[in-house]
Amino acid sequence: MTSRGLEGFYSVIPAGGVGSRLWPLSRADAPKFLHDLTGSGHTLLRDTWDRLVPLSGADRVMVVTGRAHRAAVEAQLPELTDSNIVLESEPMESSAAIGLAAAILVKREPDVIIGSFAADHVIGKSKRFSKAVIEAVAVARAGYIALIGISPTETATGFGYIHFGEPQEIEGAPSARMVDRFVEKPDLATAQGYVADGSYLWNASMFIARADVLLAQLGESEPELLAGLTELADVWDGDGATRGATVDRVWPRLKKIAIDYSVAEPAAAAGRVVVIPGDFDWDDVGDFASIAKLHAGGRKSDLAILGEGARVLADSSTGVVVSQGKRLISLIGVTDIVVVDTDDALLVTTTQNAQRVKAVVDALKLSGRSDVL
Amino acid sequence: MTSRGLEGFYSVIPAGGVGSRLWPLSRADAPKFLHDLTGSGHTLLRDTWDRLVPLSGADRVMVVTGRAHRAAVEAQLPELTDSNIVLESEPMESSAAIGLAAAILVKREPDVIIGSFAADHVIGKSKRFSKAVIEAVAVARAGYIALIGISPTETATGFGYIHFGEPQEIEGAPSARMVDRFVEKPDLATAQGYVADGSYLWNASMFIARADVLLAQLGESEPELLAGLTELADVWDGDGATRGATVDRVWPRLKKIAIDYSVAEPAAAAGRVVVIPGDFDWDDVGDFASIAKLHAGGRKSDLAILGEGARVLADSSTGVVVSQGKRLISLIGVTDIVVVDTDDALLVTTTQNAQRVKAVVDALKLSGRSDVL
Repeated sequence: MTSRGLEGFYSVIPAGGVGSRLWPLSRADAPKFLHDLTGSGHTLLRDTWDRLVPLSGADRVMVVTGRAHRAAVEAQLPELTDSNIVLESEPMESSAAIGLAAAILVKREPDVIIGSFAADHVIGKSKRFSKAVIEAVAVARAGYIALIGISPTETATGFGYIHFGEPQEIEGAPSARMVDRFVEKPDLATAQGYVADGSYLWNASMFIARADVLLAQLGESEPELLAGLTELADVWDGDGATRGATVDRVWPRLKKIAIDYSVAEPAAAAGRVVVIPGDFDWDDVGDFASIAKLHAGGRKSDLAILGEGARVLADSSTGVVVSQGKRLISLIGVTDIVVVDTDDALLVTTTQNAQRVKAVVDALKLSGRSDVL
Repeated sequence: MTSRGLEGFYSVIPAGGVGSRLWPLSRADAPKFLHDLTGSGHTLLRDTWDRLVPLSGADRVMVVTGRAHRAAVEAQLPELTDSNIVLESEPMESSAAIGLAAAILVKREPDVIIGSFAADHVIGKSKRFSKAVIEAVAVARAGYIALIGISPTETATGFGYIHFGEPQEIEGAPSARMVDRFVEKPDLATAQGYVADGSYLWNASMFIARADVLLAQLGESEPELLAGLTELADVWDGDGATRGATVDRVWPRLKKIAIDYSVAEPAAAAGRVVVIPGDFDWDDVGDFASIAKLHAGGRKSDLAILGEGARVLADSSTGVVVSQGKRLISLIGVTDIVVVDTDDALLVTTTQNAQRVKAVVDALKLSGRSDVL
């Protein structure tokens, strides 16, 4: 690692998802990555940025986000230059977002290695994270698509898993393992089997690869998508008017598909994916149960309170309270409760039901009450 | 009953208690009796008034309330005349409130029979209520202190009970029974015994007596209190300045004691109290569990929603939601929940913990956060 970061490495932060399971905290206009969910005093996006800058250099971190979030993202990341912000005209899936970043960067720098890291995950022990990225970059340099998977610390049912096989000898990547296959979010019994087995890792959506390798893989399974991304990349660094017109025309027609399906799975089937096991703390903070767990430090008896100026009076209560106002919140004898109090919407549920919050958001969409989404 | 009501009968409505267990709905400046807790479209006070007017006539219903509530009470009861509103300079217990009404009325009308009925109870089947009052007035006319007790319909632990003894032959009161003793709120096992026994009634705080009998009884146990009340009554119907000055001087020094202790218990011990069993629906709406029960009509699976314009989206949830704002309230998988959402305070608890709400109010008082009380 030079003082400017790993040679040839470029970080990409897709900052897209709203985080429906964190409604009414996360909204279309205040998505999950713009919140401080850890109590660090920083948004998840800022924490992600700060983690990546030492690895790639501050001028080599690209953010892909929605046009609507430009001002908020720039406020969080004043160091972000215009050439490093890619604005989506509408939300697209990860293949388009990461693929466009790869297509733009490979034109600027043919040998570039990109690493994509979600804007809204929580990571602890960042030295171990850096160590895993360094190995993953070595894997990418050797021509593979690298993943960083997380060694499971519990029988989580909310994550996908990566099954790894034999060690792979790659210079600079002593812990590299060939990826055997991906498995979707398992049920509890299956998850228990995975954790006991020892050859399963949580899929943390961390992809590291040469941009040209990634795009070639994408072209094999989704040639039209690649063609669209190439058309966008060809005009990206030209004049703004042409770029804008091309985005408006091409972007909305791109196929919505997760990069897991367009790249990772077919590449793994072809023996081209290597995983680096990461032994750092990681969470995708997918729901309020995750937030409660993060803040309780594993202690079941705790009540986590988020929100500057939160006024909470709790008696015999556990779970999580998120307060965005100045209202006094009083809890009596409610356990594993989730209370999210915002100006225009209040959510009351339990950590056990945290995954069902998305269904409320869907119901609100269907019933036309998008004013609170 | 004449068209103007029962002869010589005067209704008294003590409208005092805040209803701490209904915080944050009930407040010092918006006490329980000023809320519509039944969905009738009327406040509890108005419903009480409407129930009593046929029994005593609209010009013979006296309301004893705090100075702070005068405007709100008059808005609810436009028929209320100045001579029928008694304003407390500060909240006092029931002996002072009912005793003052008795002392004022006995001066105006020496043979008056008064009946005191709380402003914030819920009563159904009002014909049966009227029938019980008619019997109680006959009991009072015979010189006894009459109570109306409620035949228990469940093993309630939130009410006091009246134990009755032998039938008492009183003209016009065929169901009259001598009161044997009063018992405080029992535990569940004791309550089960009471209900099985058949000779226990819920104490609904309904007192009916000749005013002079009531005052004589009060004077036996609390002579100083009676002296103070007499001093007030002596100047009550004179000039306003003298009355105001006397209230300011005398009222705050009166003893704070419930009429149960100053009158009912000693009178019962002396064989002077008779109870009329009432078989109408009655509830003191003492907490949010009562409200949930009232609205669910006994069905456990229901979610009761109070509040004009309440916006509630509930999934697999039961209990009660009280909404005073326009905020969307979403519940997911919470059972027996109590959510009370007001401008400046939010309460989340369960019906099982409903009685503990008062402790929160006490804690808020102690910590100086009276802004939300």
